[in-house]
Amino acid sequence: MEKILIKSYKKPRLNSPVLVGGLPGIGNIGKIAADYLVEKLKMQKMAEIFSQFLPPQVFVSEGGITYLVRNTIYYRKFPGKRDLIALVGDSQGTTQEGQYEMSFSVLDLLAQYKLDTVFTLGGYSIGKIVENPRILGAATDADMLKDMKDAGVVFPRGEPGGGIVGSAGVMLGLAKELFGIRGACLMGETSGYFADPKGAMEVLKILSKLLDIPIDMTDIEERTHQLEQITGKMQEDIQSKITGKPEDLGYFG
Amino acid sequence: MEKILIKSYKKPRLNSPVLVGGLPGIGNIGKIAADYLVEKLKMQKMAEIFSQFLPPQVFVSEGGITYLVRNTIYYRKFPGKRDLIALVGDSQGTTQEGQYEMSFSVLDLLAQYKLDTVFTLGGYSIGKIVENPRILGAATDADMLKDMKDAGVVFPRGEPGGGIVGSAGVMLGLAKELFGIRGACLMGETSGYFADPKGAMEVLKILSKLLDIPIDMTDIEERTHQLEQITGKMQEDIQSKITGKPEDLGYFG
Amino acid sequence: MEKILIKSYKKPRLNSPVLVGGLPGIGNIGKIAADYLVEKLKMQKMAEIFSQFLPPQVFVSEGGITYLVRNTIYYRKFPGKRDLIALVGDSQGTTQEGQYEMSFSVLDLLAQYKLDTVFTLGGYSIGKIVENPRILGAATDADMLKDMKDAGVVFPRGEPGGGIVGSAGVMLGLAKELFGIRGACLMGETSGYFADPKGAMEVLKILSKLLDIPIDMTDIEERTHQLEQITGKMQEDIQSKITGKPEDLGYFG
Amino acid sequence: MEKILIKSYKKPRLNSPVLVGGLPGIGNIGKIAADYLVEKLKMQKMAEIFSQFLPPQVFVSEGGITYLVRNTIYYRKFPGKRDLIALVGDSQGTTQEGQYEMSFSVLDLLAQYKLDTVFTLGGYSIGKIVENPRILGAATDADMLKDMKDAGVVFPRGEPGGGIVGSAGVMLGLAKELFGIRGACLMGETSGYFADPKGAMEVLKILSKLLDIPIDMTDIEERTHQLEQITGKMQEDIQSKITGKPEDLGYFG
Repeated sequence: MEKILIKSYKKPRLNSPVLVGGLPGIGNIGKIAADYLVEKLKMQKMAEIFSQFLPPQVFVSEGGITYLVRNTIYYRKFPGKRDLIALVGDSQGTTQEGQYEMSFSVLDLLAQYKLDTVFTLGGYSIGKIVENPRILGAATDADMLKDMKDAGVVFPRGEPGGGIVGSAGVMLGLAKELFGIRGACLMGETSGYFADPKGAMEVLKILSKLLDIPIDMTDIEERTHQLEQITGKMQEDIQSKITGKPEDLGYFG
Repeated sequence: MEKILIKSYKKPRLNSPVLVGGLPGIGNIGKIAADYLVEKLKMQKMAEIFSQFLPPQVFVSEGGITYLVRNTIYYRKFPGKRDLIALVGDSQGTTQEGQYEMSFSVLDLLAQYKLDTVFTLGGYSIGKIVENPRILGAATDADMLKDMKDAGVVFPRGEPGGGIVGSAGVMLGLAKELFGIRGACLMGETSGYFADPKGAMEVLKILSKLLDIPIDMTDIEERTHQLEQITGKMQEDIQSKITGKPEDLGYFG
Repeated sequence: MEKILIKSYKKPRLNSPVLVGGLPGIGNIGKIAADYLVEKLKMQKMAEIFSQFLPPQVFVSEGGITYLVRNTIYYRKFPGKRDLIALVGDSQGTTQEGQYEMSFSVLDLLAQYKLDTVFTLGGYSIGKIVENPRILGAATDADMLKDMKDAGVVFPRGEPGGGIVGSAGVMLGLAKELFGIRGACLMGETSGYFADPKGAMEVLKILSKLLDIPIDMTDIEERTHQLEQITGKMQEDIQSKITGKPEDLGYFG
Repeated sequence: MEKILIKSYKKPRLNSPVLVGGLPGIGNIGKIAADYLVEKLKMQKMAEIFSQFLPPQVFVSEGGITYLVRNTIYYRKFPGKRDLIALVGDSQGTTQEGQYEMSFSVLDLLAQYKLDTVFTLGGYSIGKIVENPRILGAATDADMLKDMKDAGVVFPRGEPGGGIVGSAGVMLGLAKELFGIRGACLMGETSGYFADPKGAMEVLKILSKLLDIPIDMTDIEERTHQLEQITGKMQEDIQSKITGKPEDLGYFG
């Protein structure tokens, strides 16, 4: 068996496409954002990737249908602009080798389409619930930094301290070093305690500006609102137990 | 050394065979059921599989003869029906890579025989002893669900929650995605605390209906009965220690 | 780099050679015995094996010279009898894959020399110091069992319970299944707490009978005697601390 | 993706070059020393090595630019002497396989340049702060030992007890056994508790003699001095807490 198997659905003609990669990770921010993008922009399936670098697992739907763990590549053409490609999936490569190999495979496939830029989306864990998550950034090339700053991305000194680990980092590194393709990572601040639609939404707002593509945020705003009610209620409950009266825990958690 | 070595014993002509795979796992249900099937249906050895994905180990028989860990494929022809193939063995692949590679190898070999359907057998751990284990199911294709329901398989919402992990899941996923072969998994409820012939027996009853092949259940019923006496005694002992009087623990364990 | 690199020193003409394999393991019995055999029989170096399946390590001699971890194959011709080959080394393969691959490589190399039989030497841990260690056995073929029994090897029911794990087991399994070469394992009882020359000596006595090759036991008897004085002293010390008077701990440890 | 990718910058003509390898390890002594050498001798970049044996990670600079983890090879010509090559990097191979493969790749590349000698630099952990770190040595060949002793390297009996593990050891072992290239390891004593410029400086002093190349030590002396002030202060603080008065802890930690 080949270590990575790519099942091709369509081979579109694409104009200097931009890849947006969002796989499971911290706060699941990358995955939530990229899945939302695929849904709202009605992107089309281009290829599926199966691999022994992914968990040996099928999911089972409510109706009882199995679904082998995979990554999927979608695309959508934007006439007059750079076209868009999205990489989404159920898991990153589970090993160091897998993260390199799977990132390389995607880049190697998309290099054939004259891939222009890679954006990887992820979370930046700060260990507490944050009301207004900032979006931290990093880029392979200096010429991308100004646009990112203009779009609201922040570059605080010394953050992220440990660099960017996993698929979101390796993909940028390989894009630059092996394919000569520039890229950037957008990291939404998140508590890291649960799947975080708010951080994902903030990442999408920035991405929307950078790509100059409008994205309807209604649904993700609604999910964010619902989650805030739940976590707000949880904080009140905990706070009452501690102090006897409800209070905001967000910056003290 | 090749990572997987297949030693072929026979190359039978088979009619749209159905594969039944049962390897060690939760409650050892898959292995117990598939081994029983091979024995009761007097199936014939078709191939043996040795691999570095299996434990580096030989077993030693009572007489002192060594036996290298392996998987084995058996077959039996059923004139006028689909023929039967069974995959049994001492271990699943011990790594993620191994589970993909070994499942792929078996499917790749059997695809030459026009494999029609794959059934994988397994256990579904519920953490307590259950008197009447249900058989949960999942299938690659909707057309299989009705037959399974008719045979008594249940599809409770949200179960199995984590999907199907390991060989029983990967084999279905690869069958569908890479070979275009449909399949289903039958999971017998089990405490998960010991090798469970009862869950295996219930899986076999369903399988017998689905395959339309009668299987003599006398021996496995006897083993189930013996085990129930032992575990019943153990429960009484524990119960007496806790409450001072014997009582059923099965649903409260 | 090739995963296993064999550096050949000599390509002798050998007559139906017998391989004796002894690598580090339980009580280091296999390694002690095989190293002793090589030394006492003045065997000659035939090949060295370097591999990424061995630890990434050099040893440093008293004088400061480095020595890369390796396995080494020695041989000695015994005119009129089967010739002898020994496999010794600093480590077994450190992974499951490594144990399969390295065992396979050695067998694959020696199959060219018409390898006749494989003996692997190892320890059988019983968790206490034993005065008269038994030698347990297992063989790939029934025809070897009688000679082994005659030489004093025992085959107690249900032992070794978990089979034979590691190089000593895999080598026999692969010899039989992939090369059609018969083999046996000799396991010396040992506490498993320290490198045990006594168990190794008992293994060598049996091996000497099986191979019909005399081995001078003077040095290993001396080492055994020295170690028994040390461990005997230790037991007395422990015993005095517990009971106030010296006593034998061997069968109660 | 190839497991190791070498990006070549220059292919200089070199005269019997000597390789100095210093990668992260105990006390980071090898890395500090080799990085310092590259900087002070204004060595030129020859090749970069990317690999799935390195962590799946990009670092992010203060300005927000990403940097994929790598190893780098530098060189400098010394007319009339042996030329110099340095191997530096962000990480050793993270696995046993990786340490073998990456060491082999570097040697395989440099063998084309008629590599003459390999020096690997590392730390030797002694678990306490040491005022005058000794430099321990080991070499592949006896002819190197005299020069090393003359330069001040010590070879205490039984040290390093466990041999040399990791890249610094494997590289010497492979150099000798597979390429016929001699080499030596210089190990600076260090507490092992923090990155230790003092140990690195002492290693460099020895190396400077062995290579007959002067190295300006001003900056590393300054760093050493700064660190000693910090650790000295820490020791006083701890000592005051314990005894009520400041005292030297260095030989009692």
